[in-house]
Amino acid sequence: MTQTQIVQCVPNISEGRRLDVVEKIVDQVRQTEGVQLLDYSSDHDHNRTVITYVGNLASVQEASFRLTQEAVRLINMEEHQGAHPRIGAVDVIPFIPIEGLTMKECVEGATALAKRINHELKVPTYLYGEAATKIVRKNLSTIRKGNYEGLKGSIQEEARHPDFGEPKMHETAGATVVGARMPLVAFNVNLGTSKKEIADIIARNVRERNGGFKNVKGMGVALEERGEVQVSMNLEDYQSTPIYRVLETIRREAARYGVPVVGTELIGLVPQQALLDVANWYLQLEGFDSNQVLENRLR
Amino acid sequence: MTQTQIVQCVPNISEGRRLDVVEKIVDQVRQTEGVQLLDYSSDHDHNRTVITYVGNLASVQEASFRLTQEAVRLINMEEHQGAHPRIGAVDVIPFIPIEGLTMKECVEGATALAKRINHELKVPTYLYGEAATKIVRKNLSTIRKGNYEGLKGSIQEEARHPDFGEPKMHETAGATVVGARMPLVAFNVNLGTSKKEIADIIARNVRERNGGFKNVKGMGVALEERGEVQVSMNLEDYQSTPIYRVLETIRREAARYGVPVVGTELIGLVPQQALLDVANWYLQLEGFDSNQVLENRLR
Repeated sequence: MTQTQIVQCVPNISEGRRLDVVEKIVDQVRQTEGVQLLDYSSDHDHNRTVITYVGNLASVQEASFRLTQEAVRLINMEEHQGAHPRIGAVDVIPFIPIEGLTMKECVEGATALAKRINHELKVPTYLYGEAATKIVRKNLSTIRKGNYEGLKGSIQEEARHPDFGEPKMHETAGATVVGARMPLVAFNVNLGTSKKEIADIIARNVRERNGGFKNVKGMGVALEERGEVQVSMNLEDYQSTPIYRVLETIRREAARYGVPVVGTELIGLVPQQALLDVANWYLQLEGFDSNQVLENRLR
Repeated sequence: MTQTQIVQCVPNISEGRRLDVVEKIVDQVRQTEGVQLLDYSSDHDHNRTVITYVGNLASVQEASFRLTQEAVRLINMEEHQGAHPRIGAVDVIPFIPIEGLTMKECVEGATALAKRINHELKVPTYLYGEAATKIVRKNLSTIRKGNYEGLKGSIQEEARHPDFGEPKMHETAGATVVGARMPLVAFNVNLGTSKKEIADIIARNVRERNGGFKNVKGMGVALEERGEVQVSMNLEDYQSTPIYRVLETIRREAARYGVPVVGTELIGLVPQQALLDVANWYLQLEGFDSNQVLENRLR
Protein backbone atom coordinates (compact mmCIF):
# COMPACT_ATOMS: atom_id res chain seq x y z
CA MET A 1 0.00 0.00 0.00
CA THR A 2 1.64 3.26 -1.08
CA GLN A 3 1.13 6.08 1.36
CA THR A 4 -0.79 9.10 0.23
CA GLN A 5 1.27 12.29 0.11
CA ILE A 6 -0.60 15.31 1.41
CA VAL A 7 0.71 18.85 1.39
CA GLN A 8 -1.55 21.64 2.57
CA CYS A 9 -1.08 25.07 1.02
CA VAL A 10 -2.61 28.30 2.34
CA PRO A 11 -1.74 31.26 0.08
CA ASN A 12 -2.85 34.74 1.08
CA ILE A 13 -3.63 37.04 -1.83
CA SER A 14 -4.05 40.82 -1.72
CA GLU A 15 -7.63 40.94 -2.99
CA GLY A 16 -10.71 40.58 -0.84
CA ARG A 17 -13.16 43.02 -2.42
CA ARG A 18 -13.44 42.30 -6.15
CA LEU A 19 -14.96 38.84 -5.77
CA ASP A 20 -14.97 38.19 -9.53
CA VAL A 21 -11.18 38.55 -9.45
CA VAL A 22 -10.98 36.23 -6.44
CA GLU A 23 -13.05 33.63 -8.32
CA LYS A 24 -10.73 33.77 -11.35
CA ILE A 25 -7.72 33.23 -9.12
CA VAL A 26 -9.35 30.40 -7.14
CA ASP A 27 -10.40 28.82 -10.44
CA GLN A 28 -6.73 28.17 -11.16
CA VAL A 29 -6.68 25.88 -8.11
CA ARG A 30 -9.96 24.23 -9.06
CA GLN A 31 -8.59 23.48 -12.52
CA THR A 32 -5.33 21.90 -11.36
CA GLU A 33 -5.50 18.14 -11.45
CA GLY A 34 -4.74 16.31 -8.21
CA VAL A 35 -5.49 19.31 -6.02
CA GLN A 36 -8.50 19.65 -3.78
CA LEU A 37 -9.76 23.09 -2.81
CA LEU A 38 -10.84 22.92 0.84
CA ASP A 39 -11.76 26.51 1.60
CA TYR A 40 -11.34 30.16 0.68
CA SER A 41 -12.50 33.24 2.48
CA SER A 42 -12.22 36.92 1.65
CA ASP A 43 -12.00 39.74 4.15
CA HIS A 44 -13.20 43.12 2.94
CA ASP A 45 -11.37 45.28 5.50
CA HIS A 46 -8.12 43.44 5.07
CA ASN A 47 -8.77 43.33 1.29
CA ARG A 48 -7.28 39.87 1.41
CA THR A 49 -8.29 36.28 0.63
CA VAL A 50 -6.98 33.11 2.27
CA ILE A 51 -7.20 30.00 0.09
CA THR A 52 -6.71 26.44 1.39
CA TYR A 53 -6.03 23.40 -0.75
CA VAL A 54 -4.30 20.05 -0.54
CA GLY A 55 -2.67 17.56 -2.86
CA ASN A 56 0.69 15.92 -3.41
CA LEU A 57 3.74 18.15 -3.60
CA ALA A 58 3.91 18.38 -7.39
CA SER A 59 0.23 19.24 -7.86
CA VAL A 60 0.27 21.78 -5.00
CA GLN A 61 3.32 23.44 -6.59
CA GLU A 62 1.52 23.60 -9.93
CA ALA A 63 -1.71 25.01 -8.44
CA SER A 64 0.28 27.60 -6.49
CA PHE A 65 2.15 28.67 -9.59
CA ARG A 66 -1.02 29.05 -11.66
CA LEU A 67 -2.75 30.95 -8.86
CA THR A 68 0.22 33.30 -8.63
CA GLN A 69 0.29 33.82 -12.40
CA GLU A 70 -3.37 34.80 -12.39
CA ALA A 71 -3.01 37.05 -9.33
CA VAL A 72 -0.02 38.82 -10.90
CA ARG A 73 -2.16 39.41 -13.99
CA LEU A 74 -5.20 40.75 -12.12
CA ILE A 75 -3.95 42.55 -8.99
CA ASN A 76 -2.21 45.93 -9.04
CA MET A 77 -0.48 46.67 -5.74
CA GLU A 78 -0.21 50.34 -6.71
CA GLU A 79 -3.96 50.52 -6.20
CA HIS A 80 -4.22 48.13 -3.25
CA GLN A 81 -5.46 49.33 0.11
CA GLY A 82 -6.02 47.10 3.10
CA ALA A 83 -5.36 46.80 6.81
CA HIS A 84 -3.34 43.57 6.78
CA PRO A 85 0.46 43.60 6.28
CA ARG A 86 1.35 42.58 2.70
CA ILE A 87 4.09 43.01 0.13
CA GLY A 88 2.60 41.64 -3.09
CA ALA A 89 -0.34 40.45 -5.16
CA VAL A 90 0.31 37.00 -3.74
CA ASP A 91 1.58 37.90 -0.31
CA VAL A 92 2.64 34.58 1.13
CA ILE A 93 2.49 30.91 0.12
CA PRO A 94 3.07 28.48 3.01
CA PHE A 95 3.59 24.76 2.30
CA ILE A 96 2.54 22.53 5.20
CA PRO A 97 3.46 18.82 5.39
CA ILE A 98 0.42 16.80 6.50
CA GLU A 99 1.13 13.22 5.56
CA GLY A 100 3.60 11.08 3.66
CA LEU A 101 6.40 13.60 3.27
CA THR A 102 9.01 15.33 5.39
CA MET A 103 9.43 19.00 6.20
CA LYS A 104 12.66 18.86 4.16
CA GLU A 105 10.72 17.78 1.07
CA CYS A 106 8.25 20.61 1.67
CA VAL A 107 11.11 23.09 1.94
CA GLU A 108 12.56 21.83 -1.35
CA GLY A 109 9.16 22.13 -3.00
CA ALA A 110 8.63 25.65 -1.70
CA THR A 111 12.10 26.71 -2.78
CA ALA A 112 11.56 25.35 -6.29
CA LEU A 113 8.26 27.23 -6.52
CA ALA A 114 9.87 30.51 -5.36
CA LYS A 115 12.51 30.07 -8.05
CA ARG A 116 9.93 29.33 -10.74
CA ILE A 117 7.72 32.31 -9.79
CA ASN A 118 10.71 34.60 -10.12
CA HIS A 119 11.95 32.99 -13.32
CA GLU A 120 8.65 32.90 -15.19
CA LEU A 121 6.71 35.82 -13.68
CA LYS A 122 9.59 38.21 -12.85
CA VAL A 123 8.32 38.67 -9.29
CA PRO A 124 11.13 38.79 -6.68
CA THR A 125 10.61 36.04 -4.09
CA TYR A 126 11.62 35.52 -0.48
CA LEU A 127 11.91 32.30 1.49
CA TYR A 128 10.52 32.14 5.06
CA GLY A 129 9.77 29.72 7.86
CA GLU A 130 11.56 26.39 7.59
CA ALA A 131 12.58 27.34 4.05
CA ALA A 132 14.35 30.53 5.17
CA THR A 133 17.99 30.88 4.10
CA LYS A 134 18.70 33.47 6.81
CA ILE A 135 17.65 33.06 10.43
CA VAL A 136 15.95 36.48 10.59
CA ARG A 137 13.72 35.48 7.68
CA LYS A 138 12.22 32.53 9.56
CA ASN A 139 9.76 35.11 10.82
CA LEU A 140 7.42 36.48 8.17
CA SER A 141 7.21 39.92 9.80
CA THR A 142 10.90 40.61 9.17
CA ILE A 143 10.37 40.16 5.43
CA ARG A 144 7.13 42.15 5.37
CA LYS A 145 8.53 45.08 7.40
CA GLY A 146 7.22 48.35 5.95
CA ASN A 147 4.71 46.53 3.76
CA TYR A 148 4.55 46.87 -0.04
CA GLU A 149 5.21 50.58 0.14
CA GLY A 150 8.16 50.28 2.51
CA LEU A 151 9.78 47.34 0.77
CA LYS A 152 9.58 49.18 -2.54
CA GLY A 153 11.87 51.83 -1.08
CA SER A 154 14.26 49.50 0.70
CA ILE A 155 14.53 46.38 -1.48
CA GLN A 156 17.85 47.64 -2.85
CA GLU A 157 19.41 47.47 0.63
CA GLU A 158 21.42 44.27 0.87
CA ALA A 159 19.61 43.02 3.98
CA ARG A 160 16.34 43.17 2.06
CA HIS A 161 17.43 41.58 -1.21
CA PRO A 162 15.09 38.80 -2.34
CA ASP A 163 16.20 35.17 -2.35
CA PHE A 164 15.37 34.92 -6.04
CA GLY A 165 15.49 37.78 -8.55
CA GLU A 166 16.91 41.26 -8.88
CA PRO A 167 16.39 43.65 -5.93
CA LYS A 168 13.53 45.41 -7.63
CA MET A 169 9.78 45.08 -7.04
CA HIS A 170 7.52 43.80 -9.84
CA GLU A 171 5.79 46.90 -11.22
CA THR A 172 2.28 45.84 -10.25
CA ALA A 173 2.63 42.60 -8.27
CA GLY A 174 5.31 43.62 -5.75
CA ALA A 175 7.07 40.65 -4.17
CA THR A 176 6.01 37.24 -2.86
CA VAL A 177 7.07 35.16 0.16
CA VAL A 178 7.13 31.37 -0.18
CA GLY A 179 7.94 29.00 2.62
CA ALA A 180 7.17 25.95 4.70
CA ARG A 181 5.87 25.53 8.20
CA MET A 182 4.24 22.93 10.40
CA PRO A 183 0.44 22.97 10.64
CA LEU A 184 -0.92 25.11 13.44
CA VAL A 185 -3.09 23.46 16.05
CA ALA A 186 -5.40 25.99 17.71
CA PHE A 187 -6.00 24.51 21.16
CA ASN A 188 -7.82 26.11 24.10
CA VAL A 189 -8.02 24.87 27.67
CA ASN A 190 -10.99 25.99 29.79
CA LEU A 191 -10.45 26.35 33.52
CA GLY A 192 -13.05 26.12 36.28
CA THR A 193 -12.49 29.56 37.75
CA SER A 194 -13.60 33.07 36.90
CA LYS A 195 -10.20 34.54 37.83
CA LYS A 196 -8.67 35.62 34.54
CA GLU A 197 -5.30 36.21 36.20
CA ILE A 198 -4.93 32.45 36.62
CA ALA A 199 -5.33 31.91 32.88
CA ASP A 200 -2.86 34.75 32.25
CA ILE A 201 -0.26 33.24 34.57
CA ILE A 202 -0.63 29.75 33.11
CA ALA A 203 -0.48 31.07 29.53
CA ARG A 204 2.80 32.77 30.39
CA ASN A 205 4.13 29.63 32.04
CA VAL A 206 3.51 27.41 29.02
CA ARG A 207 4.32 29.72 26.11
CA GLU A 208 7.74 29.95 24.49
CA ARG A 209 8.11 33.70 24.95
CA ASN A 210 8.23 33.45 28.74
CA GLY A 211 10.29 30.29 29.10
CA GLY A 212 7.56 27.70 28.51
CA PHE A 213 7.26 25.20 25.69
CA LYS A 214 8.85 25.91 22.33
CA ASN A 215 6.34 26.40 19.47
CA VAL A 216 3.59 27.51 21.85
CA LYS A 217 1.93 30.91 21.71
CA GLY A 218 -0.73 31.58 24.33
CA MET A 219 -2.83 34.11 26.20
CA GLY A 220 -5.45 34.21 28.93
CA VAL A 221 -9.06 34.91 27.94
CA ALA A 222 -12.15 35.47 30.11
CA LEU A 223 -15.21 33.38 29.13
CA GLU A 224 -17.65 35.65 30.87
CA GLU A 225 -20.91 33.89 30.04
CA ARG A 226 -19.54 30.61 31.33
CA GLY A 227 -17.93 32.19 34.38
CA GLU A 228 -14.71 30.49 33.35
CA VAL A 229 -11.36 31.45 31.89
CA GLN A 230 -9.35 30.00 29.04
CA VAL A 231 -5.74 29.47 28.09
CA SER A 232 -5.98 30.10 24.35
CA MET A 233 -3.04 28.73 22.36
CA ASN A 234 -1.48 28.08 19.01
CA LEU A 235 0.73 24.99 18.94
CA GLU A 236 3.05 25.62 16.02
CA ASP A 237 4.69 22.20 15.93
CA TYR A 238 2.52 19.41 17.28
CA GLN A 239 5.25 16.84 16.65
CA SER A 240 7.91 18.44 18.84
CA THR A 241 5.45 19.93 21.33
CA PRO A 242 2.42 17.62 21.40
CA ILE A 243 -1.05 18.54 22.59
CA TYR A 244 -1.09 16.12 25.52
CA ARG A 245 2.14 17.46 27.02
CA VAL A 246 0.85 21.02 26.96
CA LEU A 247 -2.52 19.94 28.41
CA GLU A 248 -0.99 17.88 31.21
CA THR A 249 1.32 20.76 32.12
CA ILE A 250 -1.60 23.18 32.26
CA ARG A 251 -3.55 20.67 34.35
CA ARG A 252 -0.67 20.54 36.85
CA GLU A 253 -0.19 24.31 36.91
CA ALA A 254 -3.92 24.88 37.44
CA ALA A 255 -4.00 22.32 40.26
CA ARG A 256 -1.49 24.51 42.11
CA TYR A 257 -4.36 27.01 42.44
CA GLY A 258 -6.94 24.33 43.12
CA VAL A 259 -8.44 24.95 39.68
CA PRO A 260 -9.63 22.07 37.45
CA VAL A 261 -9.53 21.73 33.66
CA VAL A 262 -13.23 21.64 32.73
CA GLY A 263 -12.84 21.18 29.00
CA THR A 264 -10.74 21.92 25.94
CA GLU A 265 -11.36 23.00 22.36
CA LEU A 266 -9.71 22.31 19.04
CA ILE A 267 -10.47 25.12 16.58
CA GLY A 268 -10.57 24.41 12.85
CA LEU A 269 -8.73 21.61 11.09
CA VAL A 270 -6.30 19.28 12.85
CA PRO A 271 -3.96 16.77 11.24
CA GLN A 272 -5.01 13.23 12.08
CA GLN A 273 -1.55 12.44 13.40
CA ALA A 274 -1.85 15.08 16.14
CA LEU A 275 -4.88 13.20 17.53
CA LEU A 276 -3.42 9.73 17.00
CA ASP A 277 -0.42 10.91 19.05
CA VAL A 278 -2.85 11.85 21.84
CA ALA A 279 -4.55 8.43 21.76
CA ASN A 280 -1.17 6.69 21.59
CA TRP A 281 0.16 8.54 24.64
CA TYR A 282 -2.84 8.19 26.92
CA LEU A 283 -3.38 4.54 25.97
CA GLN A 284 0.36 3.84 26.50
CA LEU A 285 0.35 1.97 23.20
CA GLU A 286 3.31 -0.20 22.21
CA GLY A 287 4.31 -0.50 18.56
CA PHE A 288 1.31 1.38 17.18
CA ASP A 289 1.50 2.46 13.54
CA SER A 290 -0.91 4.92 11.96
CA ASN A 291 -1.24 2.44 9.12
CA GLN A 292 -3.36 0.38 11.54
CA VAL A 293 -6.09 2.99 11.17
CA LEU A 294 -8.45 1.31 8.76
CA GLU A 295 -9.25 4.50 6.87
CA ASN A 296 -5.54 5.07 6.22
CA ARG A 297 -5.44 1.84 4.25
CA LEU A 298 -7.85 3.25 1.70
CA ARG A 299 -6.56 4.99 -1.39
CA MET B 1 -18.27 17.97 1.39
CA THR B 2 -20.12 14.66 1.08
CA GLN B 3 -19.01 12.09 3.58
CA THR B 4 -17.39 8.93 2.32
CA GLN B 5 -19.37 5.78 3.01
CA ILE B 6 -17.21 2.88 4.11
CA VAL B 7 -18.45 -0.63 4.77
CA GLN B 8 -15.94 -3.32 5.61
CA CYS B 9 -16.73 -6.88 4.59
CA VAL B 10 -14.88 -9.98 5.81
CA PRO B 11 -16.25 -13.14 4.16
CA ASN B 12 -14.90 -16.52 5.20
CA ILE B 13 -14.84 -19.11 2.43
CA SER B 14 -14.37 -22.87 2.81
CA GLU B 15 -11.22 -23.18 0.71
CA GLY B 16 -7.70 -22.62 2.00
CA ARG B 17 -5.70 -25.24 0.12
CA ARG B 18 -6.34 -24.93 -3.63
CA LEU B 19 -4.83 -21.47 -3.97
CA ASP B 20 -5.75 -21.21 -7.68
CA VAL B 21 -9.39 -21.50 -6.63
CA VAL B 22 -8.87 -18.89 -3.91
CA GLU B 23 -7.36 -16.51 -6.50
CA LYS B 24 -10.34 -16.92 -8.83
CA ILE B 25 -12.73 -16.11 -6.00
CA VAL B 26 -10.69 -13.14 -4.78
CA ASP B 27 -10.50 -11.89 -8.38
CA GLN B 28 -14.25 -11.26 -8.22
CA VAL B 29 -13.57 -8.69 -5.51
CA ARG B 30 -10.64 -7.18 -7.40
CA GLN B 31 -12.83 -6.75 -10.46
CA THR B 32 -15.71 -5.02 -8.71
CA GLU B 33 -15.62 -1.30 -9.22
CA GLY B 34 -15.57 0.85 -6.09
CA VAL B 35 -14.27 -1.92 -3.87
CA GLN B 36 -10.78 -2.06 -2.43
CA LEU B 37 -9.30 -5.41 -1.46
CA LEU B 38 -7.34 -4.89 1.78
CA ASP B 39 -6.21 -8.39 2.64
CA TYR B 40 -6.82 -12.11 2.23
CA SER B 41 -5.21 -15.01 4.01
CA SER B 42 -5.65 -18.75 3.64
CA ASP B 43 -5.23 -21.31 6.40
CA HIS B 44 -4.32 -24.81 5.29
CA ASP B 45 -5.42 -26.67 8.43
CA HIS B 46 -8.71 -24.83 8.63
CA ASN B 47 -8.99 -25.12 4.81
CA ARG B 48 -10.46 -21.65 4.94
CA THR B 49 -9.72 -18.16 3.57
CA VAL B 50 -10.61 -14.83 5.15
CA ILE B 51 -10.99 -11.96 2.68
CA THR B 52 -11.17 -8.29 3.69
CA TYR B 53 -12.41 -5.46 1.48
CA VAL B 54 -14.05 -2.07 1.79
CA GLY B 55 -16.24 0.19 -0.29
CA ASN B 56 -19.64 1.80 -0.17
CA LEU B 57 -22.62 -0.39 0.64
CA ALA B 58 -23.72 -1.00 -2.96
CA SER B 59 -20.27 -1.96 -4.22
CA VAL B 60 -19.57 -4.20 -1.21
CA GLN B 61 -22.90 -5.95 -1.82
CA GLU B 62 -21.98 -6.49 -5.46
CA ALA B 63 -18.47 -7.78 -4.69
CA SER B 64 -19.88 -10.13 -2.05
CA PHE B 65 -22.45 -11.48 -4.46
CA ARG B 66 -19.89 -12.12 -7.21
CA LEU B 67 -17.51 -13.74 -4.73
CA THR B 68 -20.30 -16.03 -3.54
CA GLN B 69 -21.30 -16.90 -7.11
CA GLU B 70 -17.74 -17.96 -7.91
CA ALA B 71 -17.30 -19.87 -4.63
CA VAL B 72 -20.57 -21.75 -5.23
CA ARG B 73 -19.26 -22.68 -8.69
CA LEU B 74 -15.83 -23.87 -7.49
CA ILE B 75 -16.24 -25.32 -3.99
CA ASN B 76 -17.92 -28.64 -3.25
CA MET B 77 -18.78 -29.01 0.42
CA GLU B 78 -19.24 -32.76 -0.09
CA GLU B 79 -15.45 -32.96 -0.48
CA HIS B 80 -14.50 -30.30 2.05
CA GLN B 81 -12.45 -31.14 5.11
CA GLY B 82 -11.18 -28.64 7.64
CA ALA B 83 -10.91 -27.94 11.34
CA HIS B 84 -12.91 -24.71 11.48
CA PRO B 85 -16.72 -24.74 11.92
CA ARG B 86 -18.48 -24.08 8.58
CA ILE B 87 -21.77 -24.73 6.82
CA GLY B 88 -21.13 -23.73 3.24
CA ALA B 89 -18.82 -22.79 0.38
CA VAL B 90 -19.14 -19.21 1.56
CA ASP B 91 -19.52 -19.75 5.26
CA VAL B 92 -20.19 -16.28 6.59
CA ILE B 93 -20.35 -12.72 5.20
CA PRO B 94 -20.24 -10.01 7.89
CA PHE B 95 -20.95 -6.39 6.96
CA ILE B 96 -19.25 -3.88 9.25
CA PRO B 97 -20.11 -0.16 9.30
CA ILE B 98 -16.93 1.91 9.42
CA GLU B 99 -17.88 5.40 8.33
CA GLY B 100 -20.76 7.39 6.91
CA LEU B 101 -23.54 4.87 7.48
CA THR B 102 -25.52 3.40 10.33
CA MET B 103 -25.69 -0.17 11.58
CA LYS B 104 -29.32 -0.18 10.42
CA GLU B 105 -28.23 0.54 6.84
CA CYS B 106 -25.65 -2.23 7.09
CA VAL B 107 -28.34 -4.62 8.32
CA GLU B 108 -30.57 -3.70 5.38
CA GLY B 109 -27.68 -4.21 2.96
CA ALA B 110 -26.81 -7.59 4.45
CA THR B 111 -30.44 -8.69 4.37
CA ALA B 112 -30.79 -7.71 0.71
CA LEU B 113 -27.63 -9.65 -0.13
CA ALA B 114 -28.87 -12.76 1.71
CA LYS B 115 -32.09 -12.56 -0.28
CA ARG B 116 -30.27 -12.14 -3.58
CA ILE B 117 -27.87 -15.04 -2.91
CA ASN B 118 -30.82 -17.30 -2.26
CA HIS B 119 -32.81 -16.00 -5.21
CA GLU B 120 -30.09 -16.18 -7.84
CA LEU B 121 -27.80 -18.95 -6.54
CA LYS B 122 -30.36 -21.18 -4.80
CA VAL B 123 -28.26 -21.31 -1.63
CA PRO B 124 -30.34 -21.11 1.58
CA THR B 125 -29.21 -18.13 3.68
CA TYR B 126 -29.30 -17.24 7.35
CA LEU B 127 -29.11 -13.82 8.99
CA TYR B 128 -26.89 -13.34 12.08
CA GLY B 129 -25.50 -10.65 14.35
CA GLU B 130 -27.34 -7.34 14.20
CA ALA B 131 -29.19 -8.63 11.13
CA ALA B 132 -30.59 -11.67 12.98
CA THR B 133 -34.37 -12.06 12.89
CA LYS B 134 -34.36 -14.34 15.95
CA ILE B 135 -32.43 -13.57 19.13
CA VAL B 136 -30.74 -16.99 19.19
CA ARG B 137 -29.31 -16.33 15.74
CA LYS B 138 -27.42 -13.24 16.87
CA ASN B 139 -24.70 -15.70 17.73
CA LEU B 140 -23.07 -17.39 14.74
CA SER B 141 -22.41 -20.62 16.61
CA THR B 142 -26.15 -21.33 16.98
CA ILE B 143 -26.57 -21.26 13.22
CA ARG B 144 -23.42 -23.30 12.56
CA LYS B 145 -24.25 -25.98 15.13
CA GLY B 146 -23.30 -29.42 13.76
CA ASN B 147 -21.43 -27.87 10.84
CA TYR B 148 -22.22 -28.59 7.19
CA GLU B 149 -22.78 -32.27 7.87
CA GLY B 150 -25.06 -31.66 10.87
CA LEU B 151 -27.08 -28.88 9.30
CA LYS B 152 -27.68 -31.06 6.25
CA GLY B 153 -29.53 -33.51 8.47
CA SER B 154 -31.42 -30.96 10.57
CA ILE B 155 -32.26 -28.07 8.22
CA GLN B 156 -35.80 -29.42 7.86
CA GLU B 157 -36.46 -28.87 11.57
CA GLU B 158 -38.35 -25.62 11.98
CA ALA B 159 -35.81 -24.10 14.39
CA ARG B 160 -33.16 -24.51 11.74
CA HIS B 161 -35.04 -23.24 8.70
CA PRO B 162 -33.09 -20.64 6.76
CA ASP B 163 -34.20 -16.98 6.65
CA PHE B 164 -34.34 -17.15 2.85
CA GLY B 165 -35.02 -20.24 0.75
CA GLU B 166 -36.42 -23.69 1.14
CA PRO B 167 -35.19 -25.78 4.11
CA LYS B 168 -32.82 -27.76 1.92
CA MET B 169 -29.04 -27.45 1.54
CA HIS B 170 -27.57 -26.48 -1.85
CA GLU B 171 -26.19 -29.73 -3.29
CA THR B 172 -22.56 -28.61 -3.33
CA ALA B 173 -22.46 -25.19 -1.67
CA GLY B 174 -24.41 -25.91 1.54
CA ALA B 175 -25.75 -22.77 3.18
CA THR B 176 -24.44 -19.27 3.85
CA VAL B 177 -24.74 -16.88 6.79
CA VAL B 178 -24.92 -13.15 6.11
CA GLY B 179 -25.06 -10.48 8.77
CA ALA B 180 -23.81 -7.27 10.26
CA ARG B 181 -21.68 -6.53 13.28
CA MET B 182 -19.56 -3.75 14.73
CA PRO B 183 -15.83 -3.85 13.99
CA LEU B 184 -13.78 -5.77 16.53
CA VAL B 185 -11.03 -3.94 18.33
CA ALA B 186 -8.35 -6.33 19.56
CA PHE B 187 -6.89 -4.57 22.59
CA ASN B 188 -4.36 -5.93 25.08
CA VAL B 189 -3.25 -4.38 28.35
CA ASN B 190 0.16 -5.35 29.72
CA LEU B 191 0.62 -5.38 33.49
CA GLY B 192 3.84 -4.94 35.45
CA THR B 193 3.71 -8.23 37.30
CA SER B 194 4.58 -11.82 36.52
CA LYS B 195 1.55 -13.14 38.41
CA LYS B 196 -0.75 -14.48 35.74
CA GLU B 197 -3.58 -14.89 38.25
CA ILE B 198 -3.86 -11.11 38.43
CA ALA B 199 -4.45 -10.88 34.66
CA ASP B 200 -6.97 -13.74 34.97
CA ILE B 201 -8.90 -12.00 37.74
CA ILE B 202 -8.96 -8.66 35.92
CA ALA B 203 -10.00 -10.29 32.63
CA ARG B 204 -12.94 -11.84 34.46
CA ASN B 205 -13.83 -8.56 36.12
CA VAL B 206 -14.03 -6.62 32.86
CA ARG B 207 -15.54 -9.17 30.49
CA GLU B 208 -19.26 -9.50 29.81
CA ARG B 209 -19.47 -13.18 30.68
CA ASN B 210 -18.60 -12.59 34.34
CA GLY B 211 -20.52 -9.37 34.92
CA GLY B 212 -18.07 -6.89 33.43
CA PHE B 213 -18.54 -4.66 30.41
CA LYS B 214 -20.93 -5.64 27.65
CA ASN B 215 -19.25 -6.40 24.31
CA VAL B 216 -15.96 -7.36 25.97
CA LYS B 217 -14.35 -10.78 25.70
CA GLY B 218 -11.11 -11.26 27.61
CA MET B 219 -8.57 -13.65 29.09
CA GLY B 220 -5.32 -13.54 31.06
CA VAL B 221 -2.09 -14.39 29.24
CA ALA B 222 1.47 -14.80 30.58
CA LEU B 223 4.13 -12.85 28.64
CA GLU B 224 6.98 -14.99 29.89
CA GLU B 225 9.89 -13.35 28.09
CA ARG B 226 8.88 -9.96 29.40
CA GLY B 227 8.12 -11.23 32.90
CA GLU B 228 4.73 -9.57 32.57
CA VAL B 229 1.12 -10.62 32.14
CA GLN B 230 -1.57 -9.40 29.79
CA VAL B 231 -5.32 -8.90 29.77
CA SER B 232 -6.04 -9.86 26.15
CA MET B 233 -9.40 -8.62 24.87
CA ASN B 234 -11.78 -8.25 21.99
CA LEU B 235 -13.95 -5.14 22.23
CA GLU B 236 -16.95 -5.99 20.09
CA ASP B 237 -18.58 -2.56 20.10
CA TYR B 238 -16.15 0.30 20.61
CA GLN B 239 -18.98 2.84 20.46
CA SER B 240 -20.98 1.48 23.39
CA THR B 241 -17.95 0.18 25.28
CA PRO B 242 -15.02 2.43 24.39
CA ILE B 243 -11.33 1.57 24.70
CA TYR B 244 -10.58 4.26 27.30
CA ARG B 245 -13.32 3.10 29.69
CA VAL B 246 -12.04 -0.47 29.62
CA LEU B 247 -8.43 0.67 30.04
CA GLU B 248 -9.19 2.98 32.95
CA THR B 249 -11.18 0.23 34.68
CA ILE B 250 -8.30 -2.20 34.26
CA ARG B 251 -5.89 0.44 35.56
CA ARG B 252 -8.04 0.84 38.67
CA GLU B 253 -8.45 -2.90 39.20
CA ALA B 254 -4.69 -3.48 38.81
CA ALA B 255 -3.91 -0.67 41.28
CA ARG B 256 -5.85 -2.65 43.88
CA TYR B 257 -2.95 -5.17 43.68
CA GLY B 258 -0.32 -2.45 43.45
CA VAL B 259 0.25 -3.42 39.80
CA PRO B 260 0.81 -0.76 37.10
CA VAL B 261 -0.26 -0.76 33.45
CA VAL B 262 3.07 -0.79 31.61
CA GLY B 263 1.73 -0.64 28.07
CA THR B 264 -1.09 -1.63 25.73
CA GLU B 265 -1.40 -3.04 22.23
CA LEU B 266 -3.87 -2.64 19.40
CA ILE B 267 -3.74 -5.64 17.10
CA GLY B 268 -4.59 -5.27 13.41
CA LEU B 269 -6.85 -2.61 11.95
CA VAL B 270 -8.77 -0.11 14.06
CA PRO B 271 -11.48 2.29 12.88
CA GLN B 272 -10.27 5.88 13.10
CA GLN B 273 -13.30 6.82 15.19
CA ALA B 274 -12.28 4.45 17.99
CA LEU B 275 -9.01 6.39 18.39
CA LEU B 276 -10.59 9.82 17.94
CA ASP B 277 -12.95 8.85 20.79
CA VAL B 278 -9.88 8.15 22.94
CA ALA B 279 -8.28 11.52 22.11
CA ASN B 280 -11.62 13.27 22.66
CA TRP B 281 -12.09 11.73 26.10
CA TYR B 282 -8.62 12.24 27.51
CA LEU B 283 -8.38 15.78 26.12
CA GLN B 284 -11.85 16.57 27.54
CA LEU B 285 -12.74 18.14 24.19
CA GLU B 286 -15.88 20.23 23.81
CA GLY B 287 -17.76 20.23 20.52
CA PHE B 288 -15.21 18.20 18.60
CA ASP B 289 -16.31 16.80 15.22
CA SER B 290 -14.35 14.17 13.29
CA ASN B 291 -14.80 16.40 10.26
CA GLN B 292 -12.16 18.63 11.86
CA VAL B 293 -9.58 15.98 11.03
CA LEU B 294 -7.93 17.42 7.96
CA GLU B 295 -7.60 14.06 6.21
CA ASN B 296 -11.34 13.47 6.60
CA ARG B 297 -11.99 16.50 4.42
CA LEU B 298 -10.29 14.81 1.49
CA ARG B 299 -12.31 12.81 -0.97
